[in-house]
Amino acid sequence: MTTPWTPPTVEPVADAALAARLRHRIDHLTKPLGALGRIESLMLQVGLLQGRVDPQLHEPQAVVFAADHGLAARGVSAYPAEVTAQMVDNFLAGGAAISVLARTQGLGLTVVDAGVRAGTRSARPGLVVRPVAPGTADALDGPAMSAAQCAQALALGCEVVRGLPGNALVLGEMGIANTSAAALLVARLTGQPVAACTGRGTGLDDAGYARKLVLLQKVAARHADARAPLDALAAFGGFEIAALAGAMLQAAHERRLIVIDGYIVTAALLVAHALRPAVLDACVFAHRSHESGHQLALTHLHAQPLLSLGLRLGEGSGAALAWPLVAAAVALLNGMASFDEAGVSARSEG
Amino acid sequence: MTTPWTPPTVEPVADAALAARLRHRIDHLTKPLGALGRIESLMLQVGLLQGRVDPQLHEPQAVVFAADHGLAARGVSAYPAEVTAQMVDNFLAGGAAISVLARTQGLGLTVVDAGVRAGTRSARPGLVVRPVAPGTADALDGPAMSAAQCAQALALGCEVVRGLPGNALVLGEMGIANTSAAALLVARLTGQPVAACTGRGTGLDDAGYARKLVLLQKVAARHADARAPLDALAAFGGFEIAALAGAMLQAAHERRLIVIDGYIVTAALLVAHALRPAVLDACVFAHRSHESGHQLALTHLHAQPLLSLGLRLGEGSGAALAWPLVAAAVALLNGMASFDEAGVSARSEG
Repeated sequence: MTTPWTPPTVEPVADAALAARLRHRIDHLTKPLGALGRIESLMLQVGLLQGRVDPQLHEPQAVVFAADHGLAARGVSAYPAEVTAQMVDNFLAGGAAISVLARTQGLGLTVVDAGVRAGTRSARPGLVVRPVAPGTADALDGPAMSAAQCAQALALGCEVVRGLPGNALVLGEMGIANTSAAALLVARLTGQPVAACTGRGTGLDDAGYARKLVLLQKVAARHADARAPLDALAAFGGFEIAALAGAMLQAAHERRLIVIDGYIVTAALLVAHALRPAVLDACVFAHRSHESGHQLALTHLHAQPLLSLGLRLGEGSGAALAWPLVAAAVALLNGMASFDEAGVSARSEG
Repeated sequence: MTTPWTPPTVEPVADAALAARLRHRIDHLTKPLGALGRIESLMLQVGLLQGRVDPQLHEPQAVVFAADHGLAARGVSAYPAEVTAQMVDNFLAGGAAISVLARTQGLGLTVVDAGVRAGTRSARPGLVVRPVAPGTADALDGPAMSAAQCAQALALGCEVVRGLPGNALVLGEMGIANTSAAALLVARLTGQPVAACTGRGTGLDDAGYARKLVLLQKVAARHADARAPLDALAAFGGFEIAALAGAMLQAAHERRLIVIDGYIVTAALLVAHALRPAVLDACVFAHRSHESGHQLALTHLHAQPLLSLGLRLGEGSGAALAWPLVAAAVALLNGMASFDEAGVSARSEG
């Protein structure tokens, strides 16, 4: 990268003494050992992240980064590119899935225009207008973004997070054609073939899928030398993905909990993870998406998502759907009585 | 059965015209077709159950039926039998997982003593004291309950539901040794071997598991002729399982939504389903439990649970954890804008 960008430091969460105290607390709650399964892993993770046996979640924030992609003009999506801007309006008007879920789950909602081609009109409550450019360039012709634009988008993600209250983030995205950028990034950063990482996005038919695959293979070949994480990010885009990666690094730096949505958000995490591996300590994986390459990215990160509901919407909708499991884990850790406190007999030995 | 008990009628939910209207509504929400995966199935199910395109969930109720089992004296559980009564106290005092989850998820909580051996002391808010007997009899010596007791427990479940507000139930149970009764019922009603249906319950070691398996095979052989659903229920128990089956039938009769928890609740559903197959139309399966036989019961019912988190706690905890997904589905169905309403371009054709 010609424009240097230094990612925030992210220290690993490693405190054996605290882990033992948390495990002791969890194992003495009024339930059989391990009976809350994955919920117990969440208790441990949030406790370690916050450095306390009684972690608290407050003012959780959903943030949706939106931007357009030059590749959209080549027909890689079932939807026209103007949908990105229209959906931003829908997010703000309250009619999108993430709008409904944010209300239902008690999440704040911030939408960030990181580069929506049509623009997002005037500032409105909940909207941050900070476009890097009106969409990325066509990645078949050259890099989707310059190194300076990439650095700007990463820094934007950091800045947005610094300005948010609370200690937990639900991250989402909107950008017509961004499953193409995600597929290219996942293929490059995991070493998997482009074909294995390319799915139907939001609903391509067979012919559309075949065209998308041929195109993405050409784009990957065009940028065969973009192998470092930030080079790959600049080559394939997009602004919302770069901003997401920046947001994750800043959030992990601050020890905020991050709920990771589907394919595109996970692609951004691959970038963040390549820069600062300890970012994973802050991440809860919400769901296994219907998009085929998502599983490859999850496997690369050794991630076990909470849900597997065939979701493929984006916007952070899967992360918002998983949020109550995270909140419940923390409520159970703090709210359940121990065997001693409740006067319940422990298990018999032998 | 010598004492006749007539289950409430349960009419199948079948309205092709309404299903088409719901499908149309779901398909025109601002998201790609099918992009909300299993959440869309929930939208359709709740709409059909309530007979409307704009279903509403109000005053959801968690109900935990508790009772003791004669088989507990034979050491089939890692916990002593007095834990049933102690956990009822814990439910009411707010320290159990289901207590915390009911608070967190906005569920009412009712605990029903359907036959707790130690008794549940005086009446307290949230507690219904209606024991059929102080625990079932030892199923190795004879039926766990008489036909009259079985009918009484089934009727108790119906009566409890009739007295509850709201239109949705989260059902749970407590009863030391009740995974044994569940295993025997599941084996009998699905035709699977007892060994395939028998797990470690809340944490038996290898030796304990081996003893449990030998014992359950003896009990199954002792009641080889108890093949009709209510005969099997009376043979193996327990009061809480019978009450759950009654509660499900009454709830389905009233078109309340029922969120099914883990192994024991699913065993009760097998009984209800054998009597009134249409009860399934009202059921949402919350999770796939860690208990091995649960999968066999789910397969028998062609059920697809929402969660798979390695839970094996009971109390309705898995159902309560899944509740926000159900609530979110209804909120999304009612709250999301259509493409027309939001002014979002539909997908391009071809």
